[in-house]
Amino acid sequence: MIKTDILIIGAGPTGLFTVFEAGLLKLKCHLIDALPQPGGQCSEIYPKKPIYDIPGFPEILAGDLTKNLLEQGKQFEPGFTLGERAETIEKQEDGSFIVTTNKGTQHHALVVAIAGGLGSFEPRKPAIEGIADYEDKGVEYIIKDPEFYRDKKVVISGGGDSALDWSIFLTDVASEVTLIHRRNEFRGALDSVEKVRELTLLNKIKLITPAEVKELHGDGKIEAVSVVKDGETTKIDTDHFIPLFGLSPKLGPIGNWGLDIEKNAIKVDNSLNYQTNIPGIFAIGDVNTYPEKLKLILCGFHEATLMCQAAYRIINPGKKYVLKYTTVSGIDGFDGTRKEAPKAVVQAIN
Amino acid sequence: MIKTDILIIGAGPTGLFTVFEAGLLKLKCHLIDALPQPGGQCSEIYPKKPIYDIPGFPEILAGDLTKNLLEQGKQFEPGFTLGERAETIEKQEDGSFIVTTNKGTQHHALVVAIAGGLGSFEPRKPAIEGIADYEDKGVEYIIKDPEFYRDKKVVISGGGDSALDWSIFLTDVASEVTLIHRRNEFRGALDSVEKVRELTLLNKIKLITPAEVKELHGDGKIEAVSVVKDGETTKIDTDHFIPLFGLSPKLGPIGNWGLDIEKNAIKVDNSLNYQTNIPGIFAIGDVNTYPEKLKLILCGFHEATLMCQAAYRIINPGKKYVLKYTTVSGIDGFDGTRKEAPKAVVQAIN
Repeated sequence: MIKTDILIIGAGPTGLFTVFEAGLLKLKCHLIDALPQPGGQCSEIYPKKPIYDIPGFPEILAGDLTKNLLEQGKQFEPGFTLGERAETIEKQEDGSFIVTTNKGTQHHALVVAIAGGLGSFEPRKPAIEGIADYEDKGVEYIIKDPEFYRDKKVVISGGGDSALDWSIFLTDVASEVTLIHRRNEFRGALDSVEKVRELTLLNKIKLITPAEVKELHGDGKIEAVSVVKDGETTKIDTDHFIPLFGLSPKLGPIGNWGLDIEKNAIKVDNSLNYQTNIPGIFAIGDVNTYPEKLKLILCGFHEATLMCQAAYRIINPGKKYVLKYTTVSGIDGFDGTRKEAPKAVVQAIN
Repeated sequence: MIKTDILIIGAGPTGLFTVFEAGLLKLKCHLIDALPQPGGQCSEIYPKKPIYDIPGFPEILAGDLTKNLLEQGKQFEPGFTLGERAETIEKQEDGSFIVTTNKGTQHHALVVAIAGGLGSFEPRKPAIEGIADYEDKGVEYIIKDPEFYRDKKVVISGGGDSALDWSIFLTDVASEVTLIHRRNEFRGALDSVEKVRELTLLNKIKLITPAEVKELHGDGKIEAVSVVKDGETTKIDTDHFIPLFGLSPKLGPIGNWGLDIEKNAIKVDNSLNYQTNIPGIFAIGDVNTYPEKLKLILCGFHEATLMCQAAYRIINPGKKYVLKYTTVSGIDGFDGTRKEAPKAVVQAIN
């Protein structure tokens, strides 16, 4: 069982900054994230995109923001459970919580801060009749291990970077790669588009546009798909059908924790400290909602900071905390390091 | 009359970031500050001190934060009235406001955002009987123009950088410089302390410690001060007595604007958008108070951002604003510049 003061669900920018603010209050944090690395969307979806609205940064790449936040909190030695999704929560008699992941890892904490962003990113699924019956039987929405497709026939559907890049990659692995997109235009990096064009001319990718997969065939597993182009239907034999239509955020299992939910977000008390309807569970950053809420990273920073004060009172009942400015008092890390501003010299003159 | 959308009182970090957030909503800002340069305390009091709790900056000098915030907002072309103090406010029949400074400069705006920090910094005054009668008659708490002291006798009192530095500087200007401090130890930069020691040995500064000025003498203006050292009183002839005991923040004239005030701070509705009891006037950053308020720069950033949304609705009644992410939509400056993330290429492949 992993034990910590504040258990943070979600290691995006809000979760990472919580580590720093909690550390100033001598509280230890542990973070759970379904993604294999910290940073949330900033690392997973747009690490190379500039953000313009982080205060004090006229421009910063999302990946660099993540790096900076990790650096800012590192002296407070956060723990991480990565690549696992927080699945269940149980309130103990003493008011503490046990959170268990989909892989069975258990975490114990007095305070839980949900910083889950827009939620787990789930693949968008095409509306093809009966597709659910073929899931994991030839239909995959995410490519986990390309070797799985070695010497197999694959049909990929989609018009973004993911569809382009995997089509290119799988030409070296699969026996046959068909790429289907409902438009002639692809939305992806210039070199990916050109590479697909080249591989199409070399007959390594069979490109069908504008077209759509309308039917799936097979007995117990995918054997063929029906593709409609210009009103005409063609049946294509295949071992796999891989729709890559991007990811869409879902609240996931947290939606079943008994929290007040409104439009896929967790309602919190913004007039105080972003606590949910369950005392001891807070929601900060894009995952929460309240009147006038803005889903901006800078708002998550503020919410995390106020939440930590409330967490302090829960974890240290009866103890009074007096705010100290880091500029004046410096920072004592849990790792023994100390940061402080150079002090004015106090010196006898006579 | 200066006209703007949002008139910001205070050009500290919160006020400066407001320019950026307002600009994203196509609202123009003008800032008033009593200090001669933007940045507030960050520029005036601790420009060379590192701050550790600005999210995404493991460490940043206060002066650099100011520079970055100015850069971040510059494409939205803010106006500045610097070195003047907002003195009076008048609500017009149409709901707009006219704010006039101590120098008579008038500003007209539909929304006023008070981002006054801890207030104007007023000099701390020593408790010497009758000192108020001598103010501007030989007693000055701030040195505005050193030439004023040319060939005059001055007595400076205080033990910090300001007392040390001005004593040093005035040795070249005044006919006689006496420095009095109640302790033997000075709290200032090492080289200032050493320079004063050196000038004392050269008889250019008359140093009296540990001692205090206890009485002022003179008919209509200062002619002498009584200094007590080791229980003995000495009378020293002088033209000026300059107590340099530091600055202490005061809300100042804003305190008379009819706003709800609590402990030198302006009460706001934090459950919505940091509006004060007067519709159209908001208070953001260290100047405001609400349950669980923390006087941190990062909180001011959040408050400014939510406030701008409310300002938008006041300035554009009936118009709906849909939040756009800068990462996705880029930024169009009022100066014609455009910032945007490199887009994925959309390209025909057939």
